[in-house]
Amino acid sequence: MLSEKRGDAIDLSHHLSNVARARQTSPLKGLQKWMGKPGLISLAGGLPNAQYFPIASISGELLAPDSFPLKTEPEESSLSWFWKLFSRSDKERTTTFTVDKYPKHPGDLNLATGLQYGMASGLPQMKEILHEFVEKVFQPAYGNWTTLLHTGNTDGWGKTVQTILNPGDGLIVSEWTYPSALAGARPYGIKLVPIGMDAEGMSSAALRKTLAEWDESTRGMPRPHVMYTVPIGQNPTGTTMGLDRKKEIYDICVEYDIIIVEDDPYYFLQEGKYVPKSERVSESDADDETFLARLAPSYLKVDYQGRVIRLDTFSKTVCPGSRLGWFTCNPMFAERLERAAETSSQAPCGFTQLYVTSLLMNWHYDGYIRWLKALRIQYKGRRDYLVDCFAEEFHLQQSISTQGYTAGAQVYYASLKPKRSFIPLSEKDVAYSKPLFSFVPPSSGMFVWIELHLEDHPSFSSLGYKALEMKLWTDIAEAGVLFGPGSMFSATPVDDDTPGHGHFRISFSNSTPEELKKAVTIFGTTLRSFMKH
Amino acid sequence: MLSEKRGDAIDLSHHLSNVARARQTSPLKGLQKWMGKPGLISLAGGLPNAQYFPIASISGELLAPDSFPLKTEPEESSLSWFWKLFSRSDKERTTTFTVDKYPKHPGDLNLATGLQYGMASGLPQMKEILHEFVEKVFQPAYGNWTTLLHTGNTDGWGKTVQTILNPGDGLIVSEWTYPSALAGARPYGIKLVPIGMDAEGMSSAALRKTLAEWDESTRGMPRPHVMYTVPIGQNPTGTTMGLDRKKEIYDICVEYDIIIVEDDPYYFLQEGKYVPKSERVSESDADDETFLARLAPSYLKVDYQGRVIRLDTFSKTVCPGSRLGWFTCNPMFAERLERAAETSSQAPCGFTQLYVTSLLMNWHYDGYIRWLKALRIQYKGRRDYLVDCFAEEFHLQQSISTQGYTAGAQVYYASLKPKRSFIPLSEKDVAYSKPLFSFVPPSSGMFVWIELHLEDHPSFSSLGYKALEMKLWTDIAEAGVLFGPGSMFSATPVDDDTPGHGHFRISFSNSTPEELKKAVTIFGTTLRSFMKH
Repeated sequence: MLSEKRGDAIDLSHHLSNVARARQTSPLKGLQKWMGKPGLISLAGGLPNAQYFPIASISGELLAPDSFPLKTEPEESSLSWFWKLFSRSDKERTTTFTVDKYPKHPGDLNLATGLQYGMASGLPQMKEILHEFVEKVFQPAYGNWTTLLHTGNTDGWGKTVQTILNPGDGLIVSEWTYPSALAGARPYGIKLVPIGMDAEGMSSAALRKTLAEWDESTRGMPRPHVMYTVPIGQNPTGTTMGLDRKKEIYDICVEYDIIIVEDDPYYFLQEGKYVPKSERVSESDADDETFLARLAPSYLKVDYQGRVIRLDTFSKTVCPGSRLGWFTCNPMFAERLERAAETSSQAPCGFTQLYVTSLLMNWHYDGYIRWLKALRIQYKGRRDYLVDCFAEEFHLQQSISTQGYTAGAQVYYASLKPKRSFIPLSEKDVAYSKPLFSFVPPSSGMFVWIELHLEDHPSFSSLGYKALEMKLWTDIAEAGVLFGPGSMFSATPVDDDTPGHGHFRISFSNSTPEELKKAVTIFGTTLRSFMKH
Repeated sequence: MLSEKRGDAIDLSHHLSNVARARQTSPLKGLQKWMGKPGLISLAGGLPNAQYFPIASISGELLAPDSFPLKTEPEESSLSWFWKLFSRSDKERTTTFTVDKYPKHPGDLNLATGLQYGMASGLPQMKEILHEFVEKVFQPAYGNWTTLLHTGNTDGWGKTVQTILNPGDGLIVSEWTYPSALAGARPYGIKLVPIGMDAEGMSSAALRKTLAEWDESTRGMPRPHVMYTVPIGQNPTGTTMGLDRKKEIYDICVEYDIIIVEDDPYYFLQEGKYVPKSERVSESDADDETFLARLAPSYLKVDYQGRVIRLDTFSKTVCPGSRLGWFTCNPMFAERLERAAETSSQAPCGFTQLYVTSLLMNWHYDGYIRWLKALRIQYKGRRDYLVDCFAEEFHLQQSISTQGYTAGAQVYYASLKPKRSFIPLSEKDVAYSKPLFSFVPPSSGMFVWIELHLEDHPSFSSLGYKALEMKLWTDIAEAGVLFGPGSMFSATPVDDDTPGHGHFRISFSNSTPEELKKAVTIFGTTLRSFMKH
C-alpha cells in the first residue's frame, strides 16, 4: 500500500521562530550516551524516590471496544434509540486493568517509572502505538515523520505558535475559525489573514488570490508562512475537506512555502451527508480498511515535503480530561517542539499516559478502530436527531448555495410554521414565513452552524447584525437555552457597524434527546416572539 | 494566629507583560452568569458526551499516611535502616478508593465531570483543599490571595515568564541557578542578572548593591522588576533561606518594585544541619504546629503587598508524574495566568486531579502533614548517609567559610586518605592530602553540591576549570557514575578561559545505599588516578 521509498522531509528550518532557534538543547541530552550502560549509577538527575510515591497501584474498568452498535436503526424513533443508549450504562461490559508500582514482569507498564519524571516524548509503549496508528490511518507521504506527545490540541497549537511564528507574522485562517485558536496566537502579536470559505472549508482559489496579490506595504506584514486549519468538522461550520481540495491547498503551500498546521480533533466524527428522516436507510457495516478509506484523508497523506504539523487529540475519542494528544510532523519541528515542552508542560501526566496506553494495549489496534467506527455512528445519530428536530419545528426548504462560505452546499432555509389557529394568518405572520435562518447540516464534528436572516426585524437597520445576534442570543438564554454566539468565531473583528449576518453554533454532542428537542422548540418560540419586537 | 484584618494586594498590574495584557478574557466568561440556572440546556460548548468515555471507573491503592517512621534510629547502621525500608514494600498498608463515572452520591467525585473539559482552575474540591493548606502552612500576609492549578513548577514558571516578562527585560537570579528555569526564560530574550550568594542563598547586600548601582546604559536594560528564586533547597547549592533574610530581600523588592517568583519544590525537604554520625542523636517527634513552625517560612508569610508568585508542586510530595502543582498569588496575576492556561495546558489532566484530590480527601489535612513529616525524615536520612559516605571515603576537615557562596557556612574540605601501603608516602601522595574538593552539607533538598579544588592537577592552568571539570566528569562517568556537571548551573556563561572552580551536583534522592556507597568509592578512586594525569 505504501511505498518503502518515500523521501525524507525537505529542509524547513527557516520557518523556526526566534524563540525556537534560541532554545538550548537540554544539557541532559549530552548525558544520554552514558545512560544505557548496565550498572551505571546516576546521581545526576533530580528524581524523587519512587518508594515515596504514595500510590501502590492504579486500576481502571475499561469499556469493551464494541460497547456501542455499528448501525442506527432508522425504523426506530430517534428517541427510543437514544434512550436505549442511556439505559445501557447499567450493563456495561468492562475489563479491568491494574498497573502496579513494581510489577512482576519486566516489560509491563509500572507506576514507579510511569509516575516518575520522564522524557517529554513520553512512555515508549505509547510512542510505538502512535507510530503504528499514524502509519496505518493517516499514511504520511514522506518517510522520516515522527510523533511527539502533547497535552491536547490547545497545548499543541500553543507550542506550535511559539515554535514557528514571530511577532508581526501573519497567520492564514479560515474566515470563520475556532476562537480559542485565535486567542492562542493574537497576544503574541500574530496578525490574522482570513481566507474565504465554501462548502468544503477554506477556498483554494481565495487562498491563491490572497497570496498572489500579497503586497507587504499595504498589508503591513510579510506574506504569511503559516496556516492554521481545521479541515474536518471545520469549527464552527462543520464542513469536511476532501482529498482534492487538500491537494490544491497543499500545492499552493508548496509554491508559497507555507507550513500547514492541521488541527484535527473531529477526524473520526465524519458523519457524512445528512439525509432527511423519511429517506434515511440503515448504514451498512464496513471492514476496517473500507471504513478508513471512506474518511476524508489527513493533509499528511499529500505531505511529501514534511510541511504539515498535524495535531491529534484523545479528547474526543477517549476523554477531554486525558489532556493527551500528539504531533505528527517532521523530526526537525518535533525536536524543537520537544524543547518547548521541556520548559513548559514537560511530559504529559503519568496517570493519563498509563491510562490511555493501557486502554490501547488492552483494545489493540483493531479494538480501537472498532470503537472509532461506533463513535462516528453515535455522533451521526445525534447530528441527524438535531436536524430532524429543526425539520419538525420549522418549515425547511432546500436550495444549492452559489456564494459565500456555503457555496456548493445544500442549504436548508428555515421559516416559522404557521401557528395552528382558528384565526387566518395576519400580514405579520406571512412575513414570518420568510426564512429566518439557514444552515448546512454538518458533515463532520459536533456542531450545527446556523446563519440568521433577521432583515425583517424592526431593529435590523438601527442595531446592526452583531447587536441583534446578541439580543436574540440573550432572549434564548433567558428562555433556558445557551447557543454559541456566532460573532466570536469571526476571524475579522466585528463591530456594531459591520454588515453581515448573525450566527449561532449549536452543539449536539452532549445533551439528551429531550434536551435537544426542547431547545429547538424554545428557539422556535423565542424567534417567533423576537420578530415581533 | 492570623489577623482577620489583613489588607488586600496592592495594584501591581504595571508588571504585566505585553502578551499578558493582550490576552482576551475568554468569550465563555460572558456566558457564566447564565450557567447556574436550574434546567438550563447548554448547546454552547464543545463537550463530547461522557457516555463515550471508555472508562467506567478508576481506582487506586493509597499508602497509609504513616507508612514511613518519624524517626531514624542513629544506633542502627545506615545500611540496615535503609534495607528495612526497601523490604517494607511487601507489607505496605493501603486503602483503596474508586471514582465511578456516575456515582451514587451527588457530592462525590465523578469521572463524568473529572474527565470532561473543565475550567483551567480545576476541580472545586481541589481548590478548597489547597486554600486550607496554604492558609495553615504558608500563612500569606495579605488577605485576598488565591490559588490556581498548574501542571508542575516548570509549567508554572513558563506561564509566569509569559505573564510578567517582556523581551529585553532583566531577570534577577542567584549566581548558581537551576538550568531548566534559565532555559525557560532565555529564549524569550530575557537577560539574566546573577546575584551573589552566601550560606543562606541569595545575598541581600549583593542584591541591594546591584539595584542601587543599576545603570541602564551600561547594563543595556532597564532595572529588572522580576526575581526568580528557589529559597529552600536552593538548586544546586542546597541552602535554606530563613525568615530574616527573606524579610530583608522582600523589603528591597518593595523598595525597587520587584515581583518575587518563589519556586519552592523542596519546601518539605528541610533536612536541617548535618551532624556527623558519631554525634548524631535521634530526632524527637513534634506535633504538627511545631513541625510547621520549625520550617523556614515561605516568602508568602512576609508578603503584605501581594508581590510574590509562589510555585508549589506535588512532584516531590506525591510524584512527578502527577504533573500537578499550583500558584499562590494575588488575584490579578492569577486571572492573567488562568487566561494563559486557557490557550496552553487548559485544566490539568483529569486523572491526576482525581487521584491527587482523592488522596488528599482520603488522608485529610492531618494525614498529609504526617506524610510530609516522614518524607522530610526519609530524605534527611539519605542526606546523612551520603555525607557519611564522604566522611568514610575521604579525610574531611571543617572550617567556617567567610567568602563566596559558602560565606558563613561550615565547609567540609575533603582530601584523599593515604592508601594503606608498606611503602612510605611519596612526595606526590603528600600533595594529594591537600583538599581536592569541598562542600557544605545541604540543609534542604536532594543534592550535595561540591566544589572542586584541582589547582594541583597537571593541566589546571592549560585547560581551565570548565574543561577540567568535564574531564573529571567523563572519567567518573566511564567508571560508572553520573554526577550533574556543575558548569550548567552557572547563571553567567562559562567558557574555557573563565576563572573559577569546577562543581558537581550529586543527588541522594533516588539510589540505594549500596549505590551511594559505591558511587563515592568510585569518585575517590577516580580522583586519585585523575590527579596523577
